[in-house]
Amino acid sequence: MNDVFARLESEVRGYCRGWPAVFTTARGSHMTAEDGRTYLDFFAGAGTLNYGHNNPLLKKRLIDYLAADSIVHSLDMYTAAKRTFLERFEEIVLKPRGLDYKVQFPGPAGNHSVEAALKLARKYTGRETVVSFTNAFHGMTLGALAVTGNSMKRTGAGVPLGHGVAMPYDNYLDGRTPDFLLFETMLDDSGSGLDKPAAVIVETVQGEGGINAATAEWLRGLSDLCRRHDILLIVDDVQMGCGRTGAFFSFEEAGIVPDIVCLSKSLSGYGLPFAITLMRRDLDVWEPGEHNGTFRGFNPAFVTAVGALEEYWTDQDMEKQTLAKGQLVERGLDEIALLNAGAVETVRGRGLAWGLVMRDPELAPRVCAEAFDRGLLMETSGPEGEVVKLLPPLTTSEADLSRGLEIIAASVSAVRDAVTV
Amino acid sequence: MNDVFARLESEVRGYCRGWPAVFTTARGSHMTAEDGRTYLDFFAGAGTLNYGHNNPLLKKRLIDYLAADSIVHSLDMYTAAKRTFLERFEEIVLKPRGLDYKVQFPGPAGNHSVEAALKLARKYTGRETVVSFTNAFHGMTLGALAVTGNSMKRTGAGVPLGHGVAMPYDNYLDGRTPDFLLFETMLDDSGSGLDKPAAVIVETVQGEGGINAATAEWLRGLSDLCRRHDILLIVDDVQMGCGRTGAFFSFEEAGIVPDIVCLSKSLSGYGLPFAITLMRRDLDVWEPGEHNGTFRGFNPAFVTAVGALEEYWTDQDMEKQTLAKGQLVERGLDEIALLNAGAVETVRGRGLAWGLVMRDPELAPRVCAEAFDRGLLMETSGPEGEVVKLLPPLTTSEADLSRGLEIIAASVSAVRDAVTV
Amino acid sequence: MNDVFARLESEVRGYCRGWPAVFTTARGSHMTAEDGRTYLDFFAGAGTLNYGHNNPLLKKRLIDYLAADSIVHSLDMYTAAKRTFLERFEEIVLKPRGLDYKVQFPGPAGNHSVEAALKLARKYTGRETVVSFTNAFHGMTLGALAVTGNSMKRTGAGVPLGHGVAMPYDNYLDGRTPDFLLFETMLDDSGSGLDKPAAVIVETVQGEGGINAATAEWLRGLSDLCRRHDILLIVDDVQMGCGRTGAFFSFEEAGIVPDIVCLSKSLSGYGLPFAITLMRRDLDVWEPGEHNGTFRGFNPAFVTAVGALEEYWTDQDMEKQTLAKGQLVERGLDEIALLNAGAVETVRGRGLAWGLVMRDPELAPRVCAEAFDRGLLMETSGPEGEVVKLLPPLTTSEADLSRGLEIIAASVSAVRDAVTV
Amino acid sequence: MNDVFARLESEVRGYCRGWPAVFTTARGSHMTAEDGRTYLDFFAGAGTLNYGHNNPLLKKRLIDYLAADSIVHSLDMYTAAKRTFLERFEEIVLKPRGLDYKVQFPGPAGNHSVEAALKLARKYTGRETVVSFTNAFHGMTLGALAVTGNSMKRTGAGVPLGHGVAMPYDNYLDGRTPDFLLFETMLDDSGSGLDKPAAVIVETVQGEGGINAATAEWLRGLSDLCRRHDILLIVDDVQMGCGRTGAFFSFEEAGIVPDIVCLSKSLSGYGLPFAITLMRRDLDVWEPGEHNGTFRGFNPAFVTAVGALEEYWTDQDMEKQTLAKGQLVERGLDEIALLNAGAVETVRGRGLAWGLVMRDPELAPRVCAEAFDRGLLMETSGPEGEVVKLLPPLTTSEADLSRGLEIIAASVSAVRDAVTV
Repeated sequence: MNDVFARLESEVRGYCRGWPAVFTTARGSHMTAEDGRTYLDFFAGAGTLNYGHNNPLLKKRLIDYLAADSIVHSLDMYTAAKRTFLERFEEIVLKPRGLDYKVQFPGPAGNHSVEAALKLARKYTGRETVVSFTNAFHGMTLGALAVTGNSMKRTGAGVPLGHGVAMPYDNYLDGRTPDFLLFETMLDDSGSGLDKPAAVIVETVQGEGGINAATAEWLRGLSDLCRRHDILLIVDDVQMGCGRTGAFFSFEEAGIVPDIVCLSKSLSGYGLPFAITLMRRDLDVWEPGEHNGTFRGFNPAFVTAVGALEEYWTDQDMEKQTLAKGQLVERGLDEIALLNAGAVETVRGRGLAWGLVMRDPELAPRVCAEAFDRGLLMETSGPEGEVVKLLPPLTTSEADLSRGLEIIAASVSAVRDAVTV
Repeated sequence: MNDVFARLESEVRGYCRGWPAVFTTARGSHMTAEDGRTYLDFFAGAGTLNYGHNNPLLKKRLIDYLAADSIVHSLDMYTAAKRTFLERFEEIVLKPRGLDYKVQFPGPAGNHSVEAALKLARKYTGRETVVSFTNAFHGMTLGALAVTGNSMKRTGAGVPLGHGVAMPYDNYLDGRTPDFLLFETMLDDSGSGLDKPAAVIVETVQGEGGINAATAEWLRGLSDLCRRHDILLIVDDVQMGCGRTGAFFSFEEAGIVPDIVCLSKSLSGYGLPFAITLMRRDLDVWEPGEHNGTFRGFNPAFVTAVGALEEYWTDQDMEKQTLAKGQLVERGLDEIALLNAGAVETVRGRGLAWGLVMRDPELAPRVCAEAFDRGLLMETSGPEGEVVKLLPPLTTSEADLSRGLEIIAASVSAVRDAVTV
Repeated sequence: MNDVFARLESEVRGYCRGWPAVFTTARGSHMTAEDGRTYLDFFAGAGTLNYGHNNPLLKKRLIDYLAADSIVHSLDMYTAAKRTFLERFEEIVLKPRGLDYKVQFPGPAGNHSVEAALKLARKYTGRETVVSFTNAFHGMTLGALAVTGNSMKRTGAGVPLGHGVAMPYDNYLDGRTPDFLLFETMLDDSGSGLDKPAAVIVETVQGEGGINAATAEWLRGLSDLCRRHDILLIVDDVQMGCGRTGAFFSFEEAGIVPDIVCLSKSLSGYGLPFAITLMRRDLDVWEPGEHNGTFRGFNPAFVTAVGALEEYWTDQDMEKQTLAKGQLVERGLDEIALLNAGAVETVRGRGLAWGLVMRDPELAPRVCAEAFDRGLLMETSGPEGEVVKLLPPLTTSEADLSRGLEIIAASVSAVRDAVTV
Repeated sequence: MNDVFARLESEVRGYCRGWPAVFTTARGSHMTAEDGRTYLDFFAGAGTLNYGHNNPLLKKRLIDYLAADSIVHSLDMYTAAKRTFLERFEEIVLKPRGLDYKVQFPGPAGNHSVEAALKLARKYTGRETVVSFTNAFHGMTLGALAVTGNSMKRTGAGVPLGHGVAMPYDNYLDGRTPDFLLFETMLDDSGSGLDKPAAVIVETVQGEGGINAATAEWLRGLSDLCRRHDILLIVDDVQMGCGRTGAFFSFEEAGIVPDIVCLSKSLSGYGLPFAITLMRRDLDVWEPGEHNGTFRGFNPAFVTAVGALEEYWTDQDMEKQTLAKGQLVERGLDEIALLNAGAVETVRGRGLAWGLVMRDPELAPRVCAEAFDRGLLMETSGPEGEVVKLLPPLTTSEADLSRGLEIIAASVSAVRDAVTV
């Protein structure tokens, strides 16, 4: 069946190895394979499908736009679709939150947003070093990879990765050291060997890193530290933005205002490649054309992005529902953890991003495999792949969330029993 | 009218500055602005729209696919659309050309294809240096930027760009030195200071560099040099592939077989973000997941890409037409150059990629501005922006090509007369 | 008087700014200026003159050698003087300590020894990263500077310094974190962003860093960590070796055996430029000539180095005396600290390397200036220059040590009183 | 005999492998081994002993200085010996040549002078790139190594060497391209990929590179190019300065004035480690202490350096004699080349630096081995070691030069005959 994949597709392919099915259609929180099986999707395109697959509210807008022979590709020419996106993003997202950002279209992918953010921070400050955190993930292009922690992916660069320094993330040392003790001591010490950073780049919840959720206090401490030391704060909200943690931006709960914000993944609302970089107005020191790229103006994404904003973000319902659903998931996972204390180390997460941390890293992929057999898609994350990661569409019904939790419970049991035997 | 652009969009925006119109719809070789004016498009999304805007043959496939709630976003899961793409790409492109490549989906943009190519070449050879050429353009992410020539864009990196060495492109020194004299001398000389390269990356025609077209002899010489010195040859066919120079791959005419090929831009045929990296089968030493990214599996692009292959590449017609149309354009430009010898330095190009090189770099943007006023879209390229660049859709009718050439003639005259006065 | 210095010598000159005297002669622990004033020297060429100025036991050997028209300069040809050095170094230093090192002559300066050590560690392991510590000082050449902490000196590089990571030195975080908690956690975590290091480079007592003396436990912990993680341990004993802390090597007290050791400064015993790099026998993977340099074979230094070994290191007396004198100095400084608790923060050191840490960084240079007026030479160290640094020749008499301490006491009083007023 | 060398000295040792003798004494142009054999020295410490071994005019000054318990080691304190050096260097070297340089003491070795020059050029210009030339040799520390061509030595770095670009040296492409055609074209082309350099570093005659002597015209062209493009010109005169090519500085003949000059090797006149960096007065933007090092103030070297200046450089005799002796050597080598045209490719050099280029790289070390057997010391150089390198002391008598040439003639004959047979 899959001969052509094995014969033609590079060995670099990954997800397909754990999910040996050929998918054909999808709607909402479900994906269907060509053998007719339907899967509940707690993966959601690694956070790209917060509003579900082929969301009907957006689908109509997209097809109408295409059917009218509207502009599809425009680089950074002016188009009506882009103007509408900017207007609605300003009205629905920026203004109500009191954010005075300018918007850059850096290319279609999250790593484009990160690359642009790093360039801008370096250009603005005239400094080179960027501080990232242990277990950070910011992308695979060379600039983004240099602030990413995963050693296998770093090795793939084939050249030494420079200009980045990794600091411990929240709770990295198990509560045994005060927040930022090392970071601030090194900044205050002219002999520390830490060259003054241009910026700090941070995820509020580390998705690939294992669903490590920083506390609001830690994020405020980081913001404060950056301000005191005149270092730019970049929040990479590629995976955790667009409502994944409740509010539109994941940093809102902490009450901080980053200098630069990276958005992508669910921004288009429909799985279309789209990314933006937001920057404090006075940071916009770019020369015209200093950063460019072919797919900066993919207009269908503007259209579905506007659709997502208008359908989901003009009131508080989305945020409230996400938080409520998150509590449902948390309770379900806590129960699983309690019943399987020998196999499950802990449960962690925020909003609708959750991780079930297995004691033995080998167990997590086995839980996911059992879940797949039972019709549920989930991936692992964390440095050793030890975390079962739940990232269901935000639009998943409570019934489906419950059903997914039941499958997880059964999968953990199956794995645990196998271990016991 | 454009207040929101000025207020909200970063100063990095570029094309919109030369074309102060807000575009709404487009079909084939024409774009229409909201003021009702229609423009002939000799820009084609910088080579992304080789089959024209909203090509009706592909449009139906795209809308049908979306309407059926087919998979839109899948990372690198298996999907039916992806399988079809691989199968058809093999049958229509690879097999007839005797190419035994494996296919990587490195992300949606051309620079993703380049970043993956560079990583792979370094990983495979265990070397770091990559040789690129003067006036090369390979993209804005940090790895791709390090092999790009443009100094303004390089400075934007904010960090020194390493691991790259620039060699003179074909005819760079005006025919005053034998091809590869310096390059080969340095490779043969263990004291030259040139660390043995992992790879050479080259465009067969440098688009951003000013429509510099390497000769087939030069390309064969380069391929030969790489083979003799055990250096991988990467052809960046992002802009010149997919038929821009006649054949599907721009390197076919020279009869060479690169080790790695980068494709994007017109690959989807519809302006959808899509890129692949082709590699000699034995080079596929990737670990699963060693390079990844969210928008690797944007299925609508698989669908339109298959459409483009099936509609245009199952016989030789497309190639023949492109070459014929190219001759038409060349003749027209030669005539313009002859009539305006004081203003035009030379005409150069290949296939349907052409450049009108102005003697005074300031003239080129003025020619483009005059053309815009007369209803024609063209951009400049070259290190000083001294080249008026023609990249019309390959599907442009001869009548439209002729009309465009007339506008160019009038625009050059207008600018020349202004100079004279 | 000093017109020619101001007119001709670069602004980079430093020590002369604090000591405005032109020195002419010196003997033992005393230096005499051309105005006839004699100064007690608690600086000792920053640790280069452990056996005092113009030590008469070595002076005779040196002059006899020169008078006989013996070989002065020989690069790495074989000479009788070099052979004797190797033989005596083996007999007197290596064999009694059970050390099976090979000896490299990397150039005349301490940074040459460090550069060679770093190269070798990278070559042997095939890795690039080297871990150094906060407030480390390893030299001003580009390789050594990359593992040095001082920000002013790092900025002087003019290029970003790569391939180095700074970890907290012993007691850096005031005892608030367990030793190596961060370092080992990051090594154990494949997502930490710390690329596996080739080596760790460490000073057992950080001289320039402010006389920070690592405990034997910490050094053993570090050695153990390196061994468990297959990372080479380099001890930079340039300033603290040759008996400064008591034993010939500063790491002997901790009972550890580094993989590579850097020696210079007092190695020649007479202030002659001389350095060696010691490496575990199996690490000697150098190609002939892979690292070279003009002044690797400065034979007069071999002669005086042999003299120093034969005169001072064939029994335990030197070590015992240094430790005894160190206690004398420590007691004296403790008393000063006690009497000036408002101005002095703490006293720290080991062997005959001591630091009087002032509460206000501005006080330290003033103490040194007062001491200079009273006939005592001392420099400051530490990231803010907050430490009055005592590095008297090991051969300084107890009477001179006491006299120096009296001057320090008076100088601190003078400064403290000035502060009070 | 040499057991201790093999047992204890690192495999990195080089010269001793070709000259299996243990040297004990030396005078003028002769070195004597412990077996009683005396060798004529056409190696001169790789250019460090321009005034011969143990030059009696300097020896007395050195011993007197040491005997008087004068200052030996002083870092950058003021000393009477240093003041005298600065005064005499100004009077004898700088003033008569109209040079308004400031003097930095960067450490005892040539690579220290180079590292300081590179740092300063980068700091002053705010740029990172430094252009060096094919087959350049500037030293083994990481900064100097990055502008050195030799691939074996570059590989020894263990990390990629950045911030340097190699351009073709004079006559590199066998006269087939105009001087600086590529370099200037790339500087003028904002798309060339050559980041604007801080500086160019050049040897007027490449010693290690194979005695490649740039013409005066080429050097003037380079100086002119640097001035027009606002790039600093650094002449590394470590090996070719101090009279090796006739005049004190090797660049005088071309009539150029570099912005920065590196001197070492024969500067002390006696083989003592000593180096200085000269910089145009307005370039002296160093902060106090921004570059330092332990052996910056090795006073015996000041004393012998003054001796060399006073004995040899107060009139024109030295320069005239060197040029005359150089002609004698050139004639002798030309004759050898003529008689051995099958084995010798060419003769090249300047002043008293000469190279006999062998057609087969394997022949050069065999010629040197034959010469050693006949009592003459010479080393090879060039990327393949294909050049027999003559660097006799400038004070070598004409008789000794003739005797050396006879040995070379015999050695070439012996090797040639062996080849024939």
